[in-house]
Amino acid sequence: MKPDAILTTLSKDLHRYGGKSGFWGFVAGLKIPGFRYTYFLRKAGSTSNRSVSGIFYRFMLRRYTYKYGIQIPISTIIGDGFYIGHFGNIVINKNAVIGRNCNIAQGVTIGQVNRGKLMGCPVIGDNVWIGANAVIVGAIRIGNEVLIAPNSFVNFDVPTNSLVISSKCECKSYENPTAGYINNVMGETAVSG
Amino acid sequence: MKPDAILTTLSKDLHRYGGKSGFWGFVAGLKIPGFRYTYFLRKAGSTSNRSVSGIFYRFMLRRYTYKYGIQIPISTIIGDGFYIGHFGNIVINKNAVIGRNCNIAQGVTIGQVNRGKLMGCPVIGDNVWIGANAVIVGAIRIGNEVLIAPNSFVNFDVPTNSLVISSKCECKSYENPTAGYINNVMGETAVSG
Amino acid sequence: MKPDAILTTLSKDLHRYGGKSGFWGFVAGLKIPGFRYTYFLRKAGSTSNRSVSGIFYRFMLRRYTYKYGIQIPISTIIGDGFYIGHFGNIVINKNAVIGRNCNIAQGVTIGQVNRGKLMGCPVIGDNVWIGANAVIVGAIRIGNEVLIAPNSFVNFDVPTNSLVISSKCECKSYENPTAGYINNVMGETAVSG
Repeated sequence: MKPDAILTTLSKDLHRYGGKSGFWGFVAGLKIPGFRYTYFLRKAGSTSNRSVSGIFYRFMLRRYTYKYGIQIPISTIIGDGFYIGHFGNIVINKNAVIGRNCNIAQGVTIGQVNRGKLMGCPVIGDNVWIGANAVIVGAIRIGNEVLIAPNSFVNFDVPTNSLVISSKCECKSYENPTAGYINNVMGETAVSG
Repeated sequence: MKPDAILTTLSKDLHRYGGKSGFWGFVAGLKIPGFRYTYFLRKAGSTSNRSVSGIFYRFMLRRYTYKYGIQIPISTIIGDGFYIGHFGNIVINKNAVIGRNCNIAQGVTIGQVNRGKLMGCPVIGDNVWIGANAVIVGAIRIGNEVLIAPNSFVNFDVPTNSLVISSKCECKSYENPTAGYINNVMGETAVSG
Repeated sequence: MKPDAILTTLSKDLHRYGGKSGFWGFVAGLKIPGFRYTYFLRKAGSTSNRSVSGIFYRFMLRRYTYKYGIQIPISTIIGDGFYIGHFGNIVINKNAVIGRNCNIAQGVTIGQVNRGKLMGCPVIGDNVWIGANAVIVGAIRIGNEVLIAPNSFVNFDVPTNSLVISSKCECKSYENPTAGYINNVMGETAVSG
């Protein structure tokens, strides 16, 4: 990617973090794990791994991969305006394609299916919001303007303008449900200790 | 919070880790990631960010935020006897309220809903146990004595004395289900390699 | 475990990572977080905690526990050919038993149930593939040749040759589903910003 294109992309990424822009916006953005990771990801992707700056960006990306627990390969295609709200346990396959202005939360996996008619990786449209711990796999297409609720497992096509949500949990009345689970409770508040 | 109140809170937190107490109990507790994080969280919350000790506690909290992957803002209201069993990918919103003697597991998110009638953050009662990878969001109320099973997505009110569990997974009989998934198996145990 | 047995186990583990073998395969394997963690886990398990090498392996294991967010106790019984595809938020109870040639993904918990007839830990057979964020708990038996899809919550016995998958998410048509969720979008692509 051309240096100019990368700057445009990064300014659109930065803008997603509370509308930040300019030099001081960039400095403030670098304090946010999501933008900092995105910055080194974009920079590593736009530099050769044989240039000094390319080696530096890859080194920093690797460092933040472990520090933040974010595993996104440099070659993954991700549109402008990418937003990572919280760090932690984010894994994206190198063959996934992500559109513009997408939001990724902690615990999200975008992965590959290894066989059958779903074999391959997701292609995700623009303005897609992916909630915590959601897992999206296989050669599926997710349209534009989609909200995927937390803890969803998505291995099917999702049309534009959709909301995906897991089936509602059962909530049963239960006598003393936390007995054996909430232990070593001190003092008079002890109910199940 | 007054120094005395913080000491009482911390001694109730510490007690949750196998009934530890006293100086040596405290030393042993600091070796447990969950208590260590709780210690710096409580201490940072009870000191000014302009005092030397306040800066120290914030520095240490920040360090363990990354080391353990636990993201709990200092201003979150959390009752005495807070227990974090395992570290890793725990994210709690600053506007959430958590009662006394609650247990939080790895992968748990307690977050905000940004619009509609659920807009806001959960208020969680006393003696609530939250299992691995559970996600709890929105302006909901969770009563006392509640067990939320792992992998639950909770965006509804839960009354006192309840057990919340996701709908049961399907289990299908399948010929050679791991073909293409379990690869490079060595020797005679290879079935699907 | 005898040094010979450990070498055989480790060579079967290493083979799972793209068929690697020999000295250079081992060197390449150590660059992969999953194998590196497995290496120190096996080595720590086969050395005394009072020998110099035993202390070294435990020190390194502890380091990678935090770096990779993988929490597997040394005493957990895990068969040959163990494969950890991605690191991040993996928690396994020390009483769990895992068979040969199993695959574990990021976000997986294999844990204990503390009361009732499920009290205890899972016993998992050979050739079991466990997807991202799956949680497997209780005194259950999982047979051989089982694929557990991502985000599954498994607290029941699973027979040999099975596929376990969570119930399908609802996908609803929704007008402007990401309004309030995808904010600060720059330029003409803004739909819900």
